[in-house]
Amino acid sequence: MTSKLESKRIAATVAYDGAAFKGWQVQPGERTVQGEIEKALAVLCPSECPRIQGSGRTDAGVHARGQVFHVNVVRDFSDHRWQQALNGLLPDDIRVLKVRTVPADFHSRFDALSKQYRYFVYAEKAVPPDLRFTRTHIRKPLDMEAMKLGASLLQGEHDFLSFSANRGTVEESTVRTLYKMELIQTGPEICMVAEANGFMYKMVRQLAGALLRVGLGEMTPKDLQAMLDVPERNHLAPTAPAQALFLWYVTYPHWTSHEHI
Amino acid sequence: MTSKLESKRIAATVAYDGAAFKGWQVQPGERTVQGEIEKALAVLCPSECPRIQGSGRTDAGVHARGQVFHVNVVRDFSDHRWQQALNGLLPDDIRVLKVRTVPADFHSRFDALSKQYRYFVYAEKAVPPDLRFTRTHIRKPLDMEAMKLGASLLQGEHDFLSFSANRGTVEESTVRTLYKMELIQTGPEICMVAEANGFMYKMVRQLAGALLRVGLGEMTPKDLQAMLDVPERNHLAPTAPAQALFLWYVTYPHWTSHEHI
Repeated sequence: MTSKLESKRIAATVAYDGAAFKGWQVQPGERTVQGEIEKALAVLCPSECPRIQGSGRTDAGVHARGQVFHVNVVRDFSDHRWQQALNGLLPDDIRVLKVRTVPADFHSRFDALSKQYRYFVYAEKAVPPDLRFTRTHIRKPLDMEAMKLGASLLQGEHDFLSFSANRGTVEESTVRTLYKMELIQTGPEICMVAEANGFMYKMVRQLAGALLRVGLGEMTPKDLQAMLDVPERNHLAPTAPAQALFLWYVTYPHWTSHEHI
Repeated sequence: MTSKLESKRIAATVAYDGAAFKGWQVQPGERTVQGEIEKALAVLCPSECPRIQGSGRTDAGVHARGQVFHVNVVRDFSDHRWQQALNGLLPDDIRVLKVRTVPADFHSRFDALSKQYRYFVYAEKAVPPDLRFTRTHIRKPLDMEAMKLGASLLQGEHDFLSFSANRGTVEESTVRTLYKMELIQTGPEICMVAEANGFMYKMVRQLAGALLRVGLGEMTPKDLQAMLDVPERNHLAPTAPAQALFLWYVTYPHWTSHEHI
């Protein structure tokens, strides 16, 4: 009775303002990014119950410029029309920046080669108010030389257990390769760029928190080295606030979600 | 009976998020930047009725990174303590970035040598949501070469009557010197930098609107030249939206309000 429609897989690059979300992942009774996207898709795909797969979760309050999800769809829209249709249905704080038709075996999480996050700090007595929702405000001067030394120690392949907040008893490797841990300073603004083959729960915010502690003279680069040398869950790094963190882009074998950013 | 306190003049650099203000100037029954600052000052100077003088007004919705006002005060605070005290009383969307003690004859408006405004455009199919309140969204591609030519024509001393919205019959000169009209492109972001010895009512937004029209092919650089050559109030330039405009800084003979920005 029903016409048989061919299904295809699309990958979408999405940006969101994390302020009003309880993070990426669907949770009953909570407003989440995944939940809002699936609601919009349900309008376009009424016969299915579309479940999207993100490249990874982001916590409550964390923003994205280049998150990626994939989903199977049967409606025969062009990539551009998918973008338009989704943006027409999504709330203002989520925007689809690009849609790509991908091979049926593409997987947004398992195919990701690396991810880049950016953490934004404003180190001055006061923050210009237009930036107040997306910056961590540090009132004291930061020792940039010590922070840069600390960042260079963190780069490379390490057991990052001391910088993870993974709970429970999951027997999963805590070794990751941090391809880049870089600080870009523009006046009082410091952007911490972290790129790795994978991040554990709250890892970027713990790296940022540890580097800020080094910048404030409350920890030394040597302490960071010790945390790498003796990985333990009993970590000293505070978790930096979520509102200054952005998932910047995800890199796949043939493309990245760096849509002009 | 009252002790005689010496009065001094301070100049403050303030930044604000214009979204929730009916502009700079005090208006009965409206929330304005000047009104909020005077309310805070009244707490610190209860015996006076402090009236502040800004370098100029900004319209409803326009932001500032480096607005300047001066005011006479009798309380014997250091500059830094004035900053702290004001920031402690001001709402989150206004921050004092710096306070300077200035000569008693300093005037924030009349002593200003120039002002710089910045207008932010995002030219892509969708805007990353963290930027949605501070950008003008242009969905079509912009002809940057034509815009740059247009910007260069606008630079210099001209009668900018065609780009002003001054109302009434005030016999005031409409000649201004635009020291800089520059476009900075970073991917889909275009920042229009306008610096002049003075701006008329809505002038920056009309310059931005005209340049966008040129970028969209709806006007030519030649049309801009004609608007300069034959200044008339019957202008063709649309006023670009307020939310993407920032008063960036004000320059005085001995300092500028460019506080690290």
